[in-house]
Formats: sequence, C-alpha cells, structure tokens
Amino acid sequence: MVELVREALHTSVTDPVSASMNFLNEVAGRFPDAISLAAGRPYDAFYTVEDVERYLAAYVSYLRARGLGEARVRQAILQYGRTNGLLGDMIARMLELDEGIRVPPESVMVTSGCQEAMIVALRGLCAGPEDVVLAAEPCYVGLTGAARVLGVTVVPVPETAAGLRPETVARVARDLRASGRTPRALYVVSNFANPSGVSLAADVRRGLIEVAADQDLLILEDDPYGLFGLDDLHIPTLKSLDTDQRVIYLGSFAKSVFPGARVGFMVADQVVVSAAGHRSLLADELSTIKSMVTVNTSPIAQAVIGGVLVSCGYSLRAANREKIEFYRRNLRALLAALERHFGDPAITWNSPSGGFFAVMDVPVRADEKLLELSARDYGVLWTPMSFFYLNGGGAHAIRLSCSALVPDQIDEGVRRLATLITDVRS
Amino acid sequence: MVELVREALHTSVTDPVSASMNFLNEVAGRFPDAISLAAGRPYDAFYTVEDVERYLAAYVSYLRARGLGEARVRQAILQYGRTNGLLGDMIARMLELDEGIRVPPESVMVTSGCQEAMIVALRGLCAGPEDVVLAAEPCYVGLTGAARVLGVTVVPVPETAAGLRPETVARVARDLRASGRTPRALYVVSNFANPSGVSLAADVRRGLIEVAADQDLLILEDDPYGLFGLDDLHIPTLKSLDTDQRVIYLGSFAKSVFPGARVGFMVADQVVVSAAGHRSLLADELSTIKSMVTVNTSPIAQAVIGGVLVSCGYSLRAANREKIEFYRRNLRALLAALERHFGDPAITWNSPSGGFFAVMDVPVRADEKLLELSARDYGVLWTPMSFFYLNGGGAHAIRLSCSALVPDQIDEGVRRLATLITDVRS
Repeated sequence: MVELVREALHTSVTDPVSASMNFLNEVAGRFPDAISLAAGRPYDAFYTVEDVERYLAAYVSYLRARGLGEARVRQAILQYGRTNGLLGDMIARMLELDEGIRVPPESVMVTSGCQEAMIVALRGLCAGPEDVVLAAEPCYVGLTGAARVLGVTVVPVPETAAGLRPETVARVARDLRASGRTPRALYVVSNFANPSGVSLAADVRRGLIEVAADQDLLILEDDPYGLFGLDDLHIPTLKSLDTDQRVIYLGSFAKSVFPGARVGFMVADQVVVSAAGHRSLLADELSTIKSMVTVNTSPIAQAVIGGVLVSCGYSLRAANREKIEFYRRNLRALLAALERHFGDPAITWNSPSGGFFAVMDVPVRADEKLLELSARDYGVLWTPMSFFYLNGGGAHAIRLSCSALVPDQIDEGVRRLATLITDVRS
Repeated sequence: MVELVREALHTSVTDPVSASMNFLNEVAGRFPDAISLAAGRPYDAFYTVEDVERYLAAYVSYLRARGLGEARVRQAILQYGRTNGLLGDMIARMLELDEGIRVPPESVMVTSGCQEAMIVALRGLCAGPEDVVLAAEPCYVGLTGAARVLGVTVVPVPETAAGLRPETVARVARDLRASGRTPRALYVVSNFANPSGVSLAADVRRGLIEVAADQDLLILEDDPYGLFGLDDLHIPTLKSLDTDQRVIYLGSFAKSVFPGARVGFMVADQVVVSAAGHRSLLADELSTIKSMVTVNTSPIAQAVIGGVLVSCGYSLRAANREKIEFYRRNLRALLAALERHFGDPAITWNSPSGGFFAVMDVPVRADEKLLELSARDYGVLWTPMSFFYLNGGGAHAIRLSCSALVPDQIDEGVRRLATLITDVRS
C-alpha cells in the first residue's frame, strides 16, 4: 500500500501557519461549548434557506425581463459561462452607488470567493522568483496562504494604529529593488482589517497611492468589512481615490450577503500593453488564469448574488442596515466588556472603528498551549496573533472576534478570558 | 495612467495555448452561425432552470429528514463550511454503485469543478522544480494549464490507439529519474479522452497500475466521460482496480448533471505519513491547499448536486439513460457522417467507443488560418489538434466534437468540412 511522505508534499501543506489554523479548528471541535472569540465568520441568522430560492428566482426574472428566452436563461444558469462571470454590470453599479467607484463592467472578474481573486491576482502579477508582494503585517492568512500555494514571496510591512506609513512602504520597496527584487504590489485591507481591526487613515490612503505611483507598485485593496463601520462616516476606499488605475480592488459577498455563495470579485481596470502594442484590460488578461483555476464561478451561485443585487437596487450598503446595526452592537459590546473585565493597566487593546475584530496585548505568552488551557478550563476560544506574522511577532497578543456571537456571549467570553489571564499571571 | 507590460505578467497569461483557445473563442464569436464541431460542452436541454430549485429543495429535505434543525440546515447551505465539502458520503455511495470503487467518504474532496481538483492535486504532489507530472499526449488543456499556473513541468507520454503503452511510461519515468527529476504522477483520461476520444484498454489499465507501483508514481485518473460509452460494456476504471492506493480519481458533474454547478471532486485515499510517524489521508492534507484556492466549494452548488444524487438513489449511470442515448446517437452520427462525406482513403479518423470527440488526420495544415477560412467561408468550426501538444505535434489533425449538436447539424457540419478539405487540396 502506498505511503506518501508528508514532508515530500508541497510546502503549502506542511507550513506551520496551516498547522496552526488546523490546531485552532481542532481545539474548537474538541470544546464545542466554549464561547468562540476566535470565529470571524459572519452571524448566520440574517437569511433562511428559502431566501436562496427567492434570490435565484429574482435573477431569473431579471434575465427574462431583459428579453432572454428560455434557452438563453437556461444556458446562463446551467452551462459553462464567460470566465469572468455574469455580474460585471451589477457589481459596477453597486460599486458606484456604495463606494463612488466608477469602473467599466468589463474590468470586473467574478471569482469563487475573494480567495480565488487573491490567487489569480498574485499569479498574474508575479511572473518569476524576483517578483514579490508587500503586505501590511499582521496579515490576513488568506493572502499569505495564496502566496504560499504559488511560491510567491510576501514581504511584510509593519502596520501602525493608522494603518501603514507610506514612507515605510516606499523604503521597503526601494530596498527590495536595490536587492534585485521587484515589488509588484502592496496588499492592504483598507477598512477594519482582519486580524488587527485597523483602518487606513484618509491621508494614509492618499499617501499610499502616491507611493504606489513613485515606486511603480499596484495596490491590492481588499475590502470585505467596509460596510461595517461603527458610525456612518465612511473614509473613501483607495479605489475611489485612484485616478491612475494603481488599485486592484478585491471584494466579497461573504459578509454583506452570506458566505455560502462563495462569490467574490476583483476589479482590474488597468491597461495592459503587449510588445506588439495591443492594448487590453488586466481583468481580461487574468481571465486566462481564472479559467485554469476554476473555469468560471458557478453561475447558480452568481445568480443568487445577482438576485440579491437586483432586489436591493444595487446598494448593499442600504440593504445591510440590519447587519450593520448588529455588528455595531457587537463591537461596542466587545469594547465595553474589555473595559468592564480588564482593570489592569498593563493589559491594553485597540479600539477599531468598525468591523469584526480587535487586538489585545497580554502580559503572557498567547500560544497554542494557552489556547488549549483556555478552551478546556475556561471555556473561551481566541486566536493567537502570532498566526498572522510571517517571521515571528504577536507572541503576546490575541485577536478577539465578535461577529458570530450575541452581546451576552461576548461579555461572558471576555469575562472568562479575564479570569484566564488573571489566573495565569498569578 | 498605469500601463502594465503584458510580457511582465506570468507566463500562464501569455502562453501560446491560451492565445490559441482565445482565438478559437474569438472566431466562434465572429461567426456565430457556423456549426461548431469545436464546442465540447454538454448539450444543455436536459434540464430547466426550475430543476435547480427542485434539487436544492431535495437536498434540504434530505438534511431535515436526517434530523437537522433549521439552524443547522441554514448553516450547511449559507455559512462557510468544511473545506472538503458536504458530499463525501454521497459521492462515495455513487462511486460504489456506478463504478465499483470503494473508498472512505473522508477521502473525497468536493472541488469547484474538476479544474480545481487538478490545481490542488498538482500543487500538493509537486513540491519543487524537480517534481514533474507525466501526461498522455495529446493532453487536455485544463491539465497543462493548471500545471502552467503552478509552474509545474508536464512531461508528455505519447498516446496510442489503445491509450498509453505502460512500458513507455516506465521508460519516461526512468529517464526522468536518471536526469535528476522526480516523476510524481501520471495524468490519464481513462475513458474517451478529450481530445483524442481514445480509451485505455483493460490490459493497459492493469499495466499502468503495475508501472506506477514499479516507478513509485501516482496516477491521476480523470474520468468525466465514463458514462457515455457507445455500448454498455464498461471497462473498469483504474481506481476500481487499485488495491494499493496508487490512483487519485478526479470526477466531474459537468457532463453527468450540468456544468453550471461547477462541482467536481477528487478521491485521494492515500495514506500520508509524517516524519513524526503521524498518519493521515491525502485528501485531508490537500484540504490545506484547497482552503487557500477557494476556501470551500459553494454549499449552494453542492446542495444542488446533492439533491440530484439523493433524487436518483446515488446512481448517475441509471439517471443518465437519456443523456447516454443522446450522446451515443450523436457519436454514431459523427462517425456515419465522416463515412458519408469523406471518400478519400488519404483522409482517416479514429472510431472512439464513446464520449464526445473523434480525431481526423487531414492532408492539409490544420492551423488557425485554415480554421478562420473554415468558419468564414464554410460555416464550420473545429479544433486544431496542435492545441493539445506541448512541444509541437498535431499539425495535420483536427478534433471533432459532437456533444452540443443534434445529428442533422453534425451531418451538415461534416459535409461543410469535407468541402473545405476538398477545396483546400485542389
């Protein structure tokens, strides 16, 4: 019988971060009654299964209303389809209404979740081992994981409370070029980042676009949490400030609709010029890669999201009022619980202005051993921040998520966490 | 304004095969009235859009009948889910009923179309530049494309009328090892391959499994067309003959159900042993890669396929009687039309025992120029076989597909093709 050697498999299988995420899932599985301040998934009682049918029907009605006969409707939903998807027009309308982003519909690629958008963008931009991607650190594991699958090097740029320092990005980019490498893009989560909760300040956004121009970088702006600010102040996305097509915008419907559709998208409106002088859109060039990863995104899943968009008049911001209020209440509950249960001034945390996450610095080693103890004896789960660093870091910090709970659970979870920290220190 | 240099993008964007496929699509778009003997997609009038709702409802009923409450059902369909998917049990039952393949449900990974299964399998098995994959040539462009995205080298093994010669595979594998490379797997389409229509003879299947054991290879068996034989004789799949877990089996629902679900799967029941002695299933190890490509396959799309499986008692072979008859009639129509319209003994073609494709050798250069002439002046499309060779080959051969047409169209398409060939030769 074949026995494969694990260490001979690709490094993306055996990477320690993968092991860490598996460990977290495994602990969560062993202690199902623990309150999870680790789970960053959206709350899932906003929809019913029947909504799926309703939205699918809404999209089919939309196609019929546009004059498509039964055969064309059937082909749209059941056949292979256009690699870059069916929803370019609808997503472009949504981006203009919700974000003031004006892009041609043909610059939109619908992807099988935003994760695939990362794979496709990284692959397209990074041609050889000298091509690297910069990323704000601590960094979302989906980006570093996608890079690992492709063998693309990610160079961390340390995040501050206001996001990134544009001058640090410029310095890292210059140093890379001096060492013979080519920084192709900078990955940032502009609003309420996972894991840190940090948002880029308005002047930082402008500064990053300037640095991108100076250093000939693209910016991969990932914005899954943008709707969920604590107030209605909305800092413009980098893409909406982008007059020069420096920004590739990555979007997700996992939080604004539901994850089960696995529909995300990328806006890549950059002009690509070939040696022969032929001009095309980056979205079209990248479609070749998308076709070799998943062929196209399930048109059934796209139709469900299309039905949501047509039903809400293309403004997810308007359609998400209930969710926005829910997540605001939860984040406020998390920050209030931290105030309530942590009196020790040696223990601090940040105060994100929105989103699903906050980060707490703790005076103990926040490692897997502590996590297991926490789950077993204190009934609370959280995520070690060390998971989000490439070369060490975050050893004394934890990510707290408040998206999948209700306020009473959040308070009780934080109370248990405070007891854990007190007990471990004494 | 940013102008990206096309040649600085990854080679998977600029590869000539991608350009060829784009050219084919572009010609098809310019001459929409041409009869397409190029399109290998399934015929799409077997289902209606309403069937999607019906199957989704059938899967939801199945979950409820198993005692899942509303919250659990909702989470199954709308939340993020298990990376390897929901349908392992159902697919394992189907494989046992339809193929006599007995595998544990946990060895099944549900993928976003079979294309993703190729990406995940190639990535997991090929860790470094010395790790290469063998493939029967002419080869399906999805496999070579996936390899290109990952930078994995594909080494062609020439196909014969009976499939592959096991001794050729052994020789190529030995030569590779002698040159310092490690052949990790052999990719084959066991039944009615795309593009050649060729099937592996029964003794070839046994021979390949022996060679795989001798040469320490895995076999990636891709079987999207297995149901569609011209008769009910069914040569056992390699996986069903595989007592030693040498075979990773790749499956698709695109032909047996419909492409729009974008649901495929991989069976990877190999044991993986770590340096520390920990034993796991390859499907579980590869789930780390899958999670970095698409997170998980849309549970909405999975539910539709699950509904199909539960509705047909898990035998797609039984449920596909109508489709099987349809494709048999079409392939017979293609072979009969070739007999009818090509009298010249210098022009020959193969006679596949099933599937969607046949290959014709023509005494003219079957290149893009001829294809354009064919589309414009003769109203018929076909695929140059040169698209399916890695290092040249197929210059005088064309792939004819009969899956998306009805017999009268097939006959007329072949008649037009015969006129083209006659005119070009004279």
